[in-house]
Amino acid sequence: MTTRRTGSTGDEADREAVERAHRDFYAAWERGDLAAMASAWLDDDGISCVFPGSEPVHGAAVRGHWEQLLPLTQGIQFLFEQVTVTLRGDVAVLTCLENAVTPGTFQLGPLAPFPDEVAHLPSARLAVASTFVRTPDGWRLCHHMAGPVLTHLDLED
Amino acid sequence: MTTRRTGSTGDEADREAVERAHRDFYAAWERGDLAAMASAWLDDDGISCVFPGSEPVHGAAVRGHWEQLLPLTQGIQFLFEQVTVTLRGDVAVLTCLENAVTPGTFQLGPLAPFPDEVAHLPSARLAVASTFVRTPDGWRLCHHMAGPVLTHLDLED
Repeated sequence: MTTRRTGSTGDEADREAVERAHRDFYAAWERGDLAAMASAWLDDDGISCVFPGSEPVHGAAVRGHWEQLLPLTQGIQFLFEQVTVTLRGDVAVLTCLENAVTPGTFQLGPLAPFPDEVAHLPSARLAVASTFVRTPDGWRLCHHMAGPVLTHLDLED
Repeated sequence: MTTRRTGSTGDEADREAVERAHRDFYAAWERGDLAAMASAWLDDDGISCVFPGSEPVHGAAVRGHWEQLLPLTQGIQFLFEQVTVTLRGDVAVLTCLENAVTPGTFQLGPLAPFPDEVAHLPSARLAVASTFVRTPDGWRLCHHMAGPVLTHLDLED
């Protein structure tokens, strides 16, 4: 547990609940459970998501992107580092490093510039920022953005 | 004005104030006004920032990164598209596309893997997500993340 004790309001229980919501979302992704992934999000048109290398998408398009992404990432596993949660009343901002380990190769698919190409992505290191909103049913995602971390690339290869 | 009318609470005046805070921050960047950029941020340890290709930074390190970045981007100009603001009580999430137009060449500097190299960056297209908190003095940044948009690259060049 690397949750930072920073921010203005709220208590440790809230930060732990936000981190649990974050991990539950990725656990659903690992097991390919689209319904659980969808229910981790707030149900409104204002949700937004920025996938690595992509433009922001909003509302129903967020769910559509996850639906397209999920079959392309079968067997993916996530390892997190530097998880920090900052509470802002009923909103929480979580940042972390996401190490995504993918087995073998897969077709890039409809999200990619060249959908028919097959890629080997042994693993990726991404910076992630997710924003959660407190609801009567727990913390729900309202925003998520991920981008590749390039500072650890070994450019000699 | 392309502000989307989505989200759960709040009114158009709040969304416009958030968009103004966003534009004020970038206007300060364009004119190299570090003090104005700093005062656009909330003054607490829980602020966070993810620069393109980098790991998240927090608190005082956020200001340190802008201080390093500013001299490297003299003459930069920003053009925004698809600005959306979603209110979540006293927190607002703004997403947009940022077109950063940079004049000529500049040295990469201490943030880059190869600090002594000189780069020509004619322009960059980035996805941006910024989170603002309402304060008695107006909306202040508490989180910002930017990442390159790769879907419009002309890979034939």
